[in-house]
Amino acid sequence: MERIDDLQKNGLKIIQDTDRFCFGMDAVLLSGFAKGKPGEKVLDMGTGTGIIPILMSAKTQAEEFFALEIQHESAEMAKRSVEMNSLQDRIHIIEGDIKEASVIFGKSVFDVVTSNPPYMIAGHGEENPDDAKAIARHEVLCSLEDLIRETAAVLKPNGRFYLVHRPFRLTEIFSVMRKFKLEPKEMRLVYPFVDKEPNMVLISAIRGGNSGIKIAPPLVVYREQGVYTDEIIDIYGF
Amino acid sequence: MERIDDLQKNGLKIIQDTDRFCFGMDAVLLSGFAKGKPGEKVLDMGTGTGIIPILMSAKTQAEEFFALEIQHESAEMAKRSVEMNSLQDRIHIIEGDIKEASVIFGKSVFDVVTSNPPYMIAGHGEENPDDAKAIARHEVLCSLEDLIRETAAVLKPNGRFYLVHRPFRLTEIFSVMRKFKLEPKEMRLVYPFVDKEPNMVLISAIRGGNSGIKIAPPLVVYREQGVYTDEIIDIYGF
Repeated sequence: MERIDDLQKNGLKIIQDTDRFCFGMDAVLLSGFAKGKPGEKVLDMGTGTGIIPILMSAKTQAEEFFALEIQHESAEMAKRSVEMNSLQDRIHIIEGDIKEASVIFGKSVFDVVTSNPPYMIAGHGEENPDDAKAIARHEVLCSLEDLIRETAAVLKPNGRFYLVHRPFRLTEIFSVMRKFKLEPKEMRLVYPFVDKEPNMVLISAIRGGNSGIKIAPPLVVYREQGVYTDEIIDIYGF
Repeated sequence: MERIDDLQKNGLKIIQDTDRFCFGMDAVLLSGFAKGKPGEKVLDMGTGTGIIPILMSAKTQAEEFFALEIQHESAEMAKRSVEMNSLQDRIHIIEGDIKEASVIFGKSVFDVVTSNPPYMIAGHGEENPDDAKAIARHEVLCSLEDLIRETAAVLKPNGRFYLVHRPFRLTEIFSVMRKFKLEPKEMRLVYPFVDKEPNMVLISAIRGGNSGIKIAPPLVVYREQGVYTDEIIDIYGF
């Protein structure tokens, strides 16, 4: 069932379908972590509802956003969200496959790439690989290596990649990034509570960057059960 | 100047020389992070004062510890600390070069390797490369790659490596570990305060392990200025 949600930011709204994948805190935190500067062109890989470019259009001064989505119904819904927010001059939703991003857009064309990709390896627990939610959550149509290879190809030299993912895949993420000359430069772990294991990791990488990573202070979500920390409240813009 | 410090653990003491490298919180945290089981043989690479095997002899049930140290004066001092604690049957200090560990000890012989190696890349700020402190802090005599290559060589299949290092080198650490088939399996970041960047990272890796890392809750050192958290007090055994 479709519904319209208020994003609590500059009056922005988004259309979501509860039968499909709805955006989570991951996307909101990534839109707060990613930087976009005046004049920059940004590509969001696997945009789903379009949440990341829509939030980044308000949070950053990047000039233009392209957003790639392989699922027809999701791409159509994201286009309607962009139009509902009168952002069609700044955000362009493109229906297409991440694995062909550098064919669709060309090489070395973006200043920034963002992605909140499927986290889970295909064949590990998805019930129906054709299901819209399975495609959004599991690497059914696109692996981590596909994503990173295409990101490296479409980024300009020194271009920046902002990724949100699950901590258990960190070694693999670093290793594949380095394989394609994307050097991890900053990492922030998201801990639900200060004494719990992290359940998300935010990573920025630079195409052709030097070795050496900065690890940020912990991003803690809840001060106590049901009560967000000030930083989370700030990122959400409540 | 030499002094004798009480380790606050089973009456253990250690000899240190203030003109040389004195152990820090890094070594203490590593000795709390590393696991040693009954019957296991452990090698400490670059042992300095011998602090890690001395603490692990009290904190774990590992059977025997070997500890390699290239600097003659440090190795002699570590031997005296071992004797002072009557641990010479269980801890063996060997004067030698990490780069030749697999020649000295043979291949696939240890269950566990530990190391608190020099953190800094050689040629970055050390005043005198012959100085004892420079050798302990900078990779003058042994690079990260030397350490990890020799660790992989001396560890048995499924053997465990416990390392403490600086977070800025995390990508490189993971990348070199994977090159030598040491798969990072657990990581813990040490944050001086809960809202500050981490200044140490504890990593365990398994020789021939599967992909997939567990990231532990943050290890926070100070609850407030000058006041340790309960976990640090517990690790130090005050």
